[in-house]
Amino acid sequence: MIRSLASMAAVVTASMLAVPASADTLVDNVQGVTIDEAGKVARFDALVIADDGRVRALFRQGDDRPEGIEYRVDGKGRVMLPGMIDSHVHVMGIGFGQLTLDLSNTNSLEEALAAIARFAEENPGRPWILGRGWNQEKWGLRRFPTAAELDAIVADRPVWLSRVDGHASWANSLAMERAGITAATQDPSGGRIIRKAGSREPAGVFVDAAETLVNAVVPAPRPADRDVALRKAQDLLLANGITAVADMGTSIEDWQTFRRAGDNGTLKMRIMAYADSAQSMEIIGGPGPTPWLYDDRLRLNGIKLYLDGALGSRGATLKQPYHDEPTHKGLPLLSPAQLRNLMSRAAMDNFQVAIHAIGDAANSEVLNAVEELSLSYSGDRRWRIEHAQIVDPADIALFGHHGIIASMQPLHQTSDRLMAEARLGPERLDGAYAWHSIAEAGAPLAFGSDAPVEPADAFAGFAAAISRTDAKGEPFGGWLPQESVTREAALAAFTSGGAYAGFAEGRFGRLLPGERADFILVDRDPFLSSPQDIRSTTIFETWVNGERIHVAK
Amino acid sequence: MIRSLASMAAVVTASMLAVPASADTLVDNVQGVTIDEAGKVARFDALVIADDGRVRALFRQGDDRPEGIEYRVDGKGRVMLPGMIDSHVHVMGIGFGQLTLDLSNTNSLEEALAAIARFAEENPGRPWILGRGWNQEKWGLRRFPTAAELDAIVADRPVWLSRVDGHASWANSLAMERAGITAATQDPSGGRIIRKAGSREPAGVFVDAAETLVNAVVPAPRPADRDVALRKAQDLLLANGITAVADMGTSIEDWQTFRRAGDNGTLKMRIMAYADSAQSMEIIGGPGPTPWLYDDRLRLNGIKLYLDGALGSRGATLKQPYHDEPTHKGLPLLSPAQLRNLMSRAAMDNFQVAIHAIGDAANSEVLNAVEELSLSYSGDRRWRIEHAQIVDPADIALFGHHGIIASMQPLHQTSDRLMAEARLGPERLDGAYAWHSIAEAGAPLAFGSDAPVEPADAFAGFAAAISRTDAKGEPFGGWLPQESVTREAALAAFTSGGAYAGFAEGRFGRLLPGERADFILVDRDPFLSSPQDIRSTTIFETWVNGERIHVAK
Repeated sequence: MIRSLASMAAVVTASMLAVPASADTLVDNVQGVTIDEAGKVARFDALVIADDGRVRALFRQGDDRPEGIEYRVDGKGRVMLPGMIDSHVHVMGIGFGQLTLDLSNTNSLEEALAAIARFAEENPGRPWILGRGWNQEKWGLRRFPTAAELDAIVADRPVWLSRVDGHASWANSLAMERAGITAATQDPSGGRIIRKAGSREPAGVFVDAAETLVNAVVPAPRPADRDVALRKAQDLLLANGITAVADMGTSIEDWQTFRRAGDNGTLKMRIMAYADSAQSMEIIGGPGPTPWLYDDRLRLNGIKLYLDGALGSRGATLKQPYHDEPTHKGLPLLSPAQLRNLMSRAAMDNFQVAIHAIGDAANSEVLNAVEELSLSYSGDRRWRIEHAQIVDPADIALFGHHGIIASMQPLHQTSDRLMAEARLGPERLDGAYAWHSIAEAGAPLAFGSDAPVEPADAFAGFAAAISRTDAKGEPFGGWLPQESVTREAALAAFTSGGAYAGFAEGRFGRLLPGERADFILVDRDPFLSSPQDIRSTTIFETWVNGERIHVAK
Repeated sequence: MIRSLASMAAVVTASMLAVPASADTLVDNVQGVTIDEAGKVARFDALVIADDGRVRALFRQGDDRPEGIEYRVDGKGRVMLPGMIDSHVHVMGIGFGQLTLDLSNTNSLEEALAAIARFAEENPGRPWILGRGWNQEKWGLRRFPTAAELDAIVADRPVWLSRVDGHASWANSLAMERAGITAATQDPSGGRIIRKAGSREPAGVFVDAAETLVNAVVPAPRPADRDVALRKAQDLLLANGITAVADMGTSIEDWQTFRRAGDNGTLKMRIMAYADSAQSMEIIGGPGPTPWLYDDRLRLNGIKLYLDGALGSRGATLKQPYHDEPTHKGLPLLSPAQLRNLMSRAAMDNFQVAIHAIGDAANSEVLNAVEELSLSYSGDRRWRIEHAQIVDPADIALFGHHGIIASMQPLHQTSDRLMAEARLGPERLDGAYAWHSIAEAGAPLAFGSDAPVEPADAFAGFAAAISRTDAKGEPFGGWLPQESVTREAALAAFTSGGAYAGFAEGRFGRLLPGERADFILVDRDPFLSSPQDIRSTTIFETWVNGERIHVAK
């Protein structure tokens, strides 16, 4: 599977010698790895970057290097990989996450309450205490936390904390009071207000659409706050070796933040955007997807739709009831007609459609909708299913039949496995996080993190993808290990597959002549390291468009 | 007042000879006229355009031309002027006006009804008949037209026609039915529903804020329609020799249309945008005005606010009652506190504020508000008053005191004079369209057209500015002729003054080294022609950023 690019490089070398190369940069003495045109791993030892930020040529060890190169960089024998592409993130969520309280590392309710108290004390000026990342399952709580527990810590300011999956939030009493929520408040369609046992009194947690009741009264961030958040998000992603992302759910305010950065030259990474609504899609894109802007750094590709919620909060829609709540099958967010209308609305103007579907009922619904709509909307549509976590094995063939992109997040599997077993029971796990089966069916894979839901860590994702084990190496031998993928498939899903999923193939995602020179220099080869070693990869440098924009401290 | 640029050009020529000039363009053999750094008229005979679209140097007849020029253009002895800057237009309104029924040339109600019938017949597919430009004063009707008169012509589709000043609209019964308007509908704040005599039945005309009752149900244009409208607007403006405009009341949809054109290279002219609301301002600009985009072709400068309506529809707010409606003093659209809050909101983030004020009460209110706010917001603010049509002579000094930009439209004076006499009576005309007095007080003038309210015709505006006469040369000797301005002042107000009013001085507006090469080639010299001759100026070519983008057919 590993081939040499020597023959191709030789041809390019010859043509290079004929052209002036004064502003070219040669990065030599690297152990280069990329996915090639055939989708296979290829290796090289040096790379020349043209003035426009694109790769001009690759070289093997014995090849003559071109004459007249102005800049030379010694790669010191480090491993060079294409910049990682994270195909499912929330860019502004990552940035605001950096600016608010992060509870994702807390291991108990007590630890979380202590962190909240500390944050409130350290941030006396903030009118609301906002945060994210709590997970009652990880805490071993076996119930949702309550407003009363928060009130004991912070009573003088509203507190509003989003669950790790973004599908539920936890309020103190003042936050509920600001939102006017009482025992009389009804559950909104597609959402649920958790109530005190045997009472209609709200308990403090709001699931899916019910979150909007409180979100509506949270003060909106100012544009300058958004600019800071974008900078924080870029810093984090670039430090992690991620040079391009798909932004899932771009609002007009998010888009304008990206454009401001593009306009003033501070947009460093690449963002493939998917609008958060049909209205945003039309305002941002107008009559169709935007052009690639800022040297391929920004494009509105299409729209993100939500068909169901998450498994953890039992919002995901299942064909059969939840194993651990036998009266409940999840919360559909769109009717079949609404889903098809929105897909048509986007497709008629050639916007790409990316649909969040987690439960097997939701996935089945999307696959059937694509089957129907494909009759009207032909051509290269690249329908995407985001997450595709639980798929009925009987439905998997449809992925391949329509070339539907499976945009999946390996770390969700390692984080969710015990919860998934609880929600689904032991008999319904065959199509759970079924990367291998879905790829075998012929669907293009695009891997991501869903950051800030999971850390934006492509190497942890790579390790999970090839091993079905978590950071502790558990479970031994991997969870449903037949669904792991090869290292080659994992690298492709984090690089060239991510580009293909966003109509960016040929622009970036591979280190091949003509593509953008987006790469990272790291300390180990993911093809020669154990999954545990891959998780510890050190990223020395991150380059985008031929420029070194991050160097590890 | 007319000086030679020979000495300056000679210096620039010397420096030019030292630099490679391979892609420069020499436009020779012209009668060049511009405003110079001192605000005076200066003349030249040739101009060199650098590769970046800026003027590199000017030459007089006897100067040596530089060596090594790649492109040479023979100006054929034509008059070269800076591209005209129209400091008050509605870009998308101009474009949509080109796509809808134009009634501005109708001279009677009967003519208008015939034109409406013809348009309805020729456009069977349009769900609504939309149009603009009617003027019951010009028709000699002495009353508003009625829904019943429209119903007799078009009853099967809604009809909705905007008055020439954009401050009133005329509906047929079906349009009112679609909007749910009945005798029970109340006048909204800041608006008036014209009623049948002695009844509460709506008669068919809706003034100012009342227009929104029907506008709310008119189908919104699609993005592709907007793109066509922008193209039509640019075609019209460039053919008229206008190379830059201030867009007064830019919505997010308008802005995105401008950006789409910029992104795909079809934004030919320059647009200085003023957002239509604080919300649009924040979404478009974020934490402050945008950078100059697309080689100085687009920038959000600030916000447009409306303080009152128009004189024709008696929306303008007057200190004393209307002469021809003694119980009425106009319709204020913002309270004093609202005005100051909005001005502060914009000024705190360094957005420029442009306030529509037509009546003497509205102008007085803005001048007082600037006086108060200048204590908090120092620096170079360039507060703008749009129209400034009727100003109490006692208030004029404040314009100069705070350097407030008077953004005025000479053609309004010639169109409005009889109406203004009727509205104000003979005793209150001293501060009417008082260009000269306002400039004498020290206020910078910026002239425009208010297109599509008036034709986007800077030469007609220039003629009116220097003569206070209309296209027929009436009234003989000019209306309040002491308020006319010099030719030099008129050219400045349509070029360098317009640039200054939009913070664009040094970028464009003058033909001086370092500024963008925006110019027109015309058949006559406005300094040597009669006002009537100036109105007939033929524009042979329009150049923007050193490129010829319009040639007369």
